[in-house]
Order: sequence, then C-alpha cells, then structure tokens
Amino acid sequence: MNKLRMGVIGLGNRGFHAIQHTLLKIDDVEVTAVCDEYEDRVENAAAEVNAATGKVPFKTTDYTKVLERSDVDAVLVSTAWESHIEIAAAAMEAGKITALEVGGAYSIDDCWNLVRTYERTKTPIMFMENCCYDKAELLATSMARAGLFGEIVHCQGAYAHDLRYEILTGKENRHYRLRNYIHRNCDNYPTHDLGPIAKLLNINRGNKMVSLVTVASKAAGLRDYVRNNIGKLDKSLLEVDFRQGDIVHTLITCNNGETILLKLDTTLPRFYARDFTVRGTKGFYEQNTNTVFIEGIHKEEFWHTPDSYRCLLNNAVEFEDKYLPAIWKEATAEDLSSGHGGMDAFVFKAFVKAALNNEEMPIDVYDAASWMSISCLSEESIRHMGRPMSIPDFTNGKWITRPPKDVVEININ
Amino acid sequence: MNKLRMGVIGLGNRGFHAIQHTLLKIDDVEVTAVCDEYEDRVENAAAEVNAATGKVPFKTTDYTKVLERSDVDAVLVSTAWESHIEIAAAAMEAGKITALEVGGAYSIDDCWNLVRTYERTKTPIMFMENCCYDKAELLATSMARAGLFGEIVHCQGAYAHDLRYEILTGKENRHYRLRNYIHRNCDNYPTHDLGPIAKLLNINRGNKMVSLVTVASKAAGLRDYVRNNIGKLDKSLLEVDFRQGDIVHTLITCNNGETILLKLDTTLPRFYARDFTVRGTKGFYEQNTNTVFIEGIHKEEFWHTPDSYRCLLNNAVEFEDKYLPAIWKEATAEDLSSGHGGMDAFVFKAFVKAALNNEEMPIDVYDAASWMSISCLSEESIRHMGRPMSIPDFTNGKWITRPPKDVVEININ
Repeated sequence: MNKLRMGVIGLGNRGFHAIQHTLLKIDDVEVTAVCDEYEDRVENAAAEVNAATGKVPFKTTDYTKVLERSDVDAVLVSTAWESHIEIAAAAMEAGKITALEVGGAYSIDDCWNLVRTYERTKTPIMFMENCCYDKAELLATSMARAGLFGEIVHCQGAYAHDLRYEILTGKENRHYRLRNYIHRNCDNYPTHDLGPIAKLLNINRGNKMVSLVTVASKAAGLRDYVRNNIGKLDKSLLEVDFRQGDIVHTLITCNNGETILLKLDTTLPRFYARDFTVRGTKGFYEQNTNTVFIEGIHKEEFWHTPDSYRCLLNNAVEFEDKYLPAIWKEATAEDLSSGHGGMDAFVFKAFVKAALNNEEMPIDVYDAASWMSISCLSEESIRHMGRPMSIPDFTNGKWITRPPKDVVEININ
Repeated sequence: MNKLRMGVIGLGNRGFHAIQHTLLKIDDVEVTAVCDEYEDRVENAAAEVNAATGKVPFKTTDYTKVLERSDVDAVLVSTAWESHIEIAAAAMEAGKITALEVGGAYSIDDCWNLVRTYERTKTPIMFMENCCYDKAELLATSMARAGLFGEIVHCQGAYAHDLRYEILTGKENRHYRLRNYIHRNCDNYPTHDLGPIAKLLNINRGNKMVSLVTVASKAAGLRDYVRNNIGKLDKSLLEVDFRQGDIVHTLITCNNGETILLKLDTTLPRFYARDFTVRGTKGFYEQNTNTVFIEGIHKEEFWHTPDSYRCLLNNAVEFEDKYLPAIWKEATAEDLSSGHGGMDAFVFKAFVKAALNNEEMPIDVYDAASWMSISCLSEESIRHMGRPMSIPDFTNGKWITRPPKDVVEININ
C-alpha cells in the first residue's frame, strides 16, 4: 500500500475533528468513506473531504456498507461509546485495520469479544489513546525509563474536565454523554489517565492489573448547574435524577505491587487537568504543576507547600533537553495544530505507519480490553460500596513473557 | 480553677516539645508532673520546667502515679501510639481532664473503650488534632461555611512527609514508628488529614462516615533507603522486611454522600504536604498550591495546567481578609513560634480554655474514636485487597441530632 485508504465511522465532534485536523493532513492517508447514523453529519464530513482533496468519499448511514468496500483498508471507529466494541469487532471480521477511539466498556464479555475477534482474525487493531503521546506523559516516561525516579511505586492520573454544559446540551447535540450520566455511575472515561500509566508500568507486558476498588461521591454538580442555568438549557433536565457521581476514584493494584489512582472529575467547576503523577523511590513527577522532584537534586529547603510549588513549578522543562522523546523535539507547526496540541497527529501517524508497514500496533487489543474494562468493573464496584473487583487477564498468561513496548522510541542520551 | 495543673505522660519528641514550646508559654497552665518510661526523658523534662518556672514537677516512670496526684487536674497523653487509648481511658477513670495526642487505633474495641469510658465517667477529653487549627484548613472551612464552594461533594487530604530517616533511626531514638512500619500495613496516621475534613463535613454532627476502602502500594521506599544509606544506619535494618506500603490511599463514604480521599505518604522522597482539598458545586480550595477556584470569579482562561497554577498559585491569600478566622488574624508572634507554625498554641489554648471553664471540648471523644478507627479499619481492608469496611457509629445514633460545632468561631463578615 502507498496510502492508507480510511473509512471514518462516527462523525460527531471527535470523528469530524479527526478528519478535519488530523487525517486530511497526513500525506499517507486518503479518506475514502464517511459514515454516521445522521445524514447531515455524513454530508458535512464528505464536503470537508471534498474541499480538501477534490474527491467525494463514499457516504452511508450504515457502517456495514463501509466494511464491504474494497477501497477501504482501514477504519476509524469514533461512534458513541456504546457501539465502539461492536463496530471494531465487525471491522476486524471484515479484515479492515481498525483504529478504535477511546471510551470505556459496558461489559467484560464485550472486552473478551474484542480480544477473541482479534485473536481469530489477526486483523491489526490499535486503541487510539492520544494521551499516551502527550508531552508530559512521554517526558515522565522517558525519565522513568532512565531510572531518575528509582523503582516506581505508585502512579496517578485524572480526567478532570468541567463538561457540565457539554453534557447537558447532549440532547440538542445528539451526544451520548448525557444518557450515560443519567443512567450510569462509574469511571466512564478511564483511558486518558490510565493509558499512559499502563504503558509506563508495562501492563500486559511483564506486569498486569489485578484488582480495583471504585468509590463515587454523590451527584450534585449537574443538578445544581441545571437549576442555576435553566435559562440556557432544556427545561426537562429539571426532572432528571443523575446517577453519575461527581468525583469517582478508582484504586488499582498491579501484579508487581504498584498502585494506580484514577479520578473522573467532570461535573464540578474546575480547570482541565490530567494529574499524571509518577512516584518512585528516588523522586517524582507531577503533571499538574509540571514538577520534578529528585532526591539529591531538589533539596530539603523546599519544605512547605505552596512554597515548594513556587520554587519547582514547571521545572520539568529543565529535563526536556535530555529526556524529551524525539517526536516532541521535532514536532512541526502542523503537528502542533493537528488537534489537542499535537498528540492527535502523533497517535494517528503511529497508527498509519504500523498499518502501512504491517508492524505491531503500539497500543494493542490487550491494552484496549484491559483499559476499557475499568468502566464496567468500576460500575459494579461502586454498586457494592467499593467492593474489590478482579481485573481479567485478557492475555491469558502471555503478559509474563510479552516484552515491554513503549509507544515511541525513548532515547536516553 | 485559676490555672490548669497538668501532668504530661510521654516525653518523647512530641511531649517534650509540647512542654517546651507550648505549655510553658500558656499563662493558665502549670506543669506539675512529668512521666515517661525512660528516666532520662523524665529528668530532661523536669529540668526544662524548672528552668522556666523555678519549680520542680513530680517525676515518675509510672503513669498511674500521675493519675493519683491531687495537684494534677489534667493530663496530656503523648506516649507511643500503642498506649494512647489505654492511658487516656485510665486518666478519665481517675477524673483527670484528658488531652489525647494524635495517632491511630489498633482495634475497634479500643475505640469503643474510649467512648464508653467517657460516657461512664463524663471526664472531659479532647483529641489534640492540631491540624484542625491550621491556617489553610480554617480559611477553607470558613469559605465553605460562607457557601463559596456551593454544596460540598468531596474532600481530600494527605499526610505526606518523608520520614525515612526518622523511621529508620527509631531504635537509637526509642521511637515507636520503626516497629509499626515493620509490623503493620495501614494508614497509621490518619488524623492530620481527616480531622479538618471531618469537622468541615460535620461528621458525628448531622453526618457520619459510613464505610471505607484502603489500598496500599508495595513497600520499596524504606528498603531502598536502607541499601543506599547503610553507612549512617543500623546494619540490622538490611535484614528487615517492611510491611508498611509506601503510598496508602483510603476512600471514605459519608452518610450525606460526600467522599473523602486520604493518603499516607511517608517513605518516598518528597516535600511535606497535607493536600487539604475541598470540592463543591461552585468551586474548590487546594492547600498544596493554596489555590481557590470559584465559578464566576475565576475564568475559563485558566485552562491548562500548569498555566492554571501559575495564575492561581497562592491566590487564597486574597480571601484571608474576609474569611480567615480571628485566631489567625490576631495571632501573636508567640503563638506563631509555639510549634508547627502556630497551630500548637491554638489547639492547646482551646483545650485549656474548655477545661478551665468546663465547656464542651471542640474535638470530642466521638471525633477521637471515629478518626482513630481509620487505622485499624484500613489495616483490615488492605489485608483483603481493599474490602469495604463499615465505620462504626460511635455516637449510637446521636449524630443525627448533635448540632454542628466548629473548632473556632467562624465570623463571616
């Protein structure tokens, strides 16, 4: 293949954005089909492709039609969370190289379905967790690989993003979040925070996640927001009882003794943060303040917070020259404008390169299944007041011998 | 009583410091007895009292002798954690007004013993959680009482303090921490973080803690520190297998739907922090960066961390004029030098005032029992992979009608 001919299934905000800002800017990609259950979205996406390339892609509201086409080598699945795995499995069955957008799973059986379909078809699939490619996560991973933090003991992360307005306008915007926040209570979006941590801790490659507990706070944020902003919202929202707790914490224990703390934090006022944190026996990294603290370098004089943060805020930049992986050092202006500050370009380019060269996917089906499983496991744990839940070993023991694989090459100069 | 005549039982670092920096500086207190199992500590403390007052206190290595004395109205129990409750119960039985230093409990039965002894004897007892009186915690509590954060949904805190050297020199320094880190795995010190949160959430007064789950990371920090610093440590430490995990997270659910996240973080390199955080439907406070974020005041422009923290770091000072309680606004230089930046003076003055005036203690036996219970409950939860543990209602239902009581008067101007 010279170019990867892609069909995009799911043309909401994410799918349309991926076409407009990322796929149409990658030379090795041609968008040959667009699909969504809503016709207007299909027309808009086709027009976008046409404007950029002069070609009109195949248009459909039935994703199975995309999978039948010989001018489609690969698909991006960027539909509502609920249909991700079903469509990805169908794509693999049809032999279409699959890029699966992020989200959580609704049942463990569905996660197994993803794994078993891959193992039977061997159709390449990549889980498109863009945060695995972000700058802070890659810098800290590179520093961890170089041993700067010593033995890694604990990691944490969050998806902290005030989505109240986006959630509550879900009816008008035909967005799946609203129905999920009404009906479920779980970590519905675990992979932005878990993905980079799982890579760092070599999950499914010499290590695995063994169990979790999840606890959710009450659901007060959306209710209060509706009451205080009803003038700009659908009035029927006043009657809704939201199930989704405002703050959801999940504690994961790994086979090699590390713990992982995840937080979903999307319905209270705050600024965006992912809180990627790495703690080791020699030091730590904290993304929110971009702080590095290493024994022997950073001294006892940084004693009291917030003085410590005043001294150390953003000091991670001092480590970029030596430890930042090449993709970020060599990022072009186009990369940086590709979506989400650059990470979208990197994750899609990684997919396209592996697909065209028939290489192993950097984030594979076992990563997808284990990371997505956190949503349904957390839902059941919450229902039972934080009951510990076993996390399945989707590799069936292969994690013991599978070699580590970072998403990018980490050169430690 | 004109003056409160106090016996101090337990003259290690904490007890000696309390005499030297706090009790001897409070006019209404006279230290009339000093007790420790080690004679040299008794002599040092007596000399300290003599040097400051010209009087020699009663000296003993047997705490029951302190409880028999008619020149002792009240006692401070600042012994090793393991004997706190036993001695406090004996003091109440003897009718000595009891100041119980912080620490965690080793059994739920011991917590009940504390409560039942109080209920039978009615001897006043206060739990001396100094962090309830610290500036950040009181400022944020005052702002919460004024409604600035809306409905409170989640709080968190930590005892994050690199104690590796202190723990590992425990044999020479006759300190109880070493044996606890060797034999136990739990949140061994929950009250510095939990105390101020429990007061803010009106625990045992209209609200209660109902359950917890606790998960601990592996124990790598002390082992690595011993290997890398054996030149300055007892060689026998090389053979020790420490049970205590480096990072211990506890998630507590409250009756009114709030969650509390606690962290014990004492055996990895880091600077000190307590991470007191209050999250509500209108905004938040974070102690580590001393940041306030309130909807309608702080804008969307603070989007990406660490930019947000660069803009908002330490901005809580802008709220002090209006919300900081009087004890901090009017703190004297002597208060501020009394120990731990001022909070020691405030907690001891509160005890002495309540004792002399026969007033209700601001942190009472139900607070003590429920806060201390977290240690033994967390130990059992960890042992079972994070099993949810019920937290006993030590008030036996009285929490429903007991009125809220802050540790200081909060004036909202």
